[in-house]
Amino acid sequence: MDAAVTQTPMDRLSETLAPEMAQVNTLIRERMASRHAPRIPEVTAHLVEAGGKRLRPLLTLAAARLCGYDGPYHIHLAATVEFIHTATLLHDDVVDESKQRRGRPTANLLWDNKSSVLVGDYLLARAFQLMTDTGVMRVLEILSNASATISEGEVLQLTAAQDLATDESIYLQVVRGKTAALFSAATEVGAVIASAPEDQVRALFDYGDALGIAFQIADDLLDYGGTSAVIGKNTGDDFRERKLTLPVIKAVAAADAAERAFWQRTIEKGDQAEGDLEQALAIMARHGALQAARADALGWAAKARAALATLPAGPIRDMLEDLADFVVARIA
Amino acid sequence: MDAAVTQTPMDRLSETLAPEMAQVNTLIRERMASRHAPRIPEVTAHLVEAGGKRLRPLLTLAAARLCGYDGPYHIHLAATVEFIHTATLLHDDVVDESKQRRGRPTANLLWDNKSSVLVGDYLLARAFQLMTDTGVMRVLEILSNASATISEGEVLQLTAAQDLATDESIYLQVVRGKTAALFSAATEVGAVIASAPEDQVRALFDYGDALGIAFQIADDLLDYGGTSAVIGKNTGDDFRERKLTLPVIKAVAAADAAERAFWQRTIEKGDQAEGDLEQALAIMARHGALQAARADALGWAAKARAALATLPAGPIRDMLEDLADFVVARIA
Repeated sequence: MDAAVTQTPMDRLSETLAPEMAQVNTLIRERMASRHAPRIPEVTAHLVEAGGKRLRPLLTLAAARLCGYDGPYHIHLAATVEFIHTATLLHDDVVDESKQRRGRPTANLLWDNKSSVLVGDYLLARAFQLMTDTGVMRVLEILSNASATISEGEVLQLTAAQDLATDESIYLQVVRGKTAALFSAATEVGAVIASAPEDQVRALFDYGDALGIAFQIADDLLDYGGTSAVIGKNTGDDFRERKLTLPVIKAVAAADAAERAFWQRTIEKGDQAEGDLEQALAIMARHGALQAARADALGWAAKARAALATLPAGPIRDMLEDLADFVVARIA
Repeated sequence: MDAAVTQTPMDRLSETLAPEMAQVNTLIRERMASRHAPRIPEVTAHLVEAGGKRLRPLLTLAAARLCGYDGPYHIHLAATVEFIHTATLLHDDVVDESKQRRGRPTANLLWDNKSSVLVGDYLLARAFQLMTDTGVMRVLEILSNASATISEGEVLQLTAAQDLATDESIYLQVVRGKTAALFSAATEVGAVIASAPEDQVRALFDYGDALGIAFQIADDLLDYGGTSAVIGKNTGDDFRERKLTLPVIKAVAAADAAERAFWQRTIEKGDQAEGDLEQALAIMARHGALQAARADALGWAAKARAALATLPAGPIRDMLEDLADFVVARIA
């Protein structure tokens, strides 16, 4: 069997961009060090070395390469994007009182909430330092806008959680905050650092945005889909945490009075009993909510693929196109 | 009695810079708004409107004015500095599990830790957006460096706390993180936005740095000084929280075996009993630790005052000089 056939688009991107990714990893290790506070690299190493997929920095490297960039600063921007992502994970761990991240205990259990908050802040500061190294103001604008959207989306999620009035447009804002804003910033800054023409910058923004949304809907769907081995999450976690994700939102929109009472009790009041998850799945199946969410995810993946049409054809574009299909292959 | 005589240098700065400060407040209100997440202004208004002294933005406005700036962007930078300061307070509230801030319940009790972390992140992102508005890369460098120093100092404080090996140089790093880094960045960016010559930029950095250190030592001293009415803190809070501040560090350095055992029990082990605070004060008095810390604070205030010597003489310089004396007047 040919190895190339079994490789995922992520594997192929990683392989193609391996020399640049090695530079990114070196830069990350250099910049996360702290002369004064050795606790910092202890906490970050835990996350940064934990074998994350490095999807976001790969997107920046790929976008820059696709736009013909041959300077050094896509390395800085890829490291920036990973720092922002890692800071978000650290702050999420505090926020969600998560117990596990990437299959290992979270930093806030190994150390404490204090370290998670402050080391996250440190990484954000380091991210902005890395951006100033590029000397390009526009990448600072893009990434500070993305940072604002990320925290805005997370705050919105706090207030939207457990509120049955949450509709699909609010869900989309939350998803942009949680996932798509950093994806789209990652691809956009790759184009900007390459001084790509505006239509290419826009196309790469659109690609990252649609890719991130497809990715997140697939994730939310899997939470009800029973493929926990793939993402290390147990089926029904979102239900137990009373999160209003797309499948539930669609089911709530179509609910009759009895079903509405069910969602009010389980999601709004959080009064859940044995068998409620099965009941929730049955209600969603009745309204085709999971199928409709799946169709949405596939639609966003198609939109991501289509966004790349005006960019130079070649292996990088192929891989990015395949990546769009890949993020929804888990639910295909 | 002449009102001008009883005015503090802070009052005079506030009065002189009132029209610009009004613009800063308007900009703060505009930029802390969030179209998507109404929880954000609820949380920030609580802090931003709570009648903080606005010392840091005043420093930026004063520095810019002193260097003859007549553009609009010192307003943005003053708002930036206040946003970074407010974000730090929000994250500190989570970190320290504080119950009160500026005499009101902290945001994390009114809302929750989640909101404090995420809204702090939002304000940091907004701060960086404000900076990009200026179009001056160097202010981004200065303020991202300051942000890194702040979180580094706070992490260092976590690990240095309760460790008797903490010496005065570590204390100074912590103090730069907690206080001086943002003071010095506030004054430095004021000079930079005014395109001031390098010696003035340096002088204003030195002023802010020394002012911040003097301010923090005075604060730490007051915690053992019994003037709790002034700062809303109770005497001995730092002792009970086992913080190694300058007076204790000086007493530990001069300790005999019995005293060392006392500090190990009360600070390192946290095994404190009735009468221990009085004992700590007696030991500090025996070694002149409080007097020595006071002398250090006065020395830093004098250094701050001296740093301004090369800057244009006039009312603003006078007020900044007086401000240096004012921050230590509480312990004079």
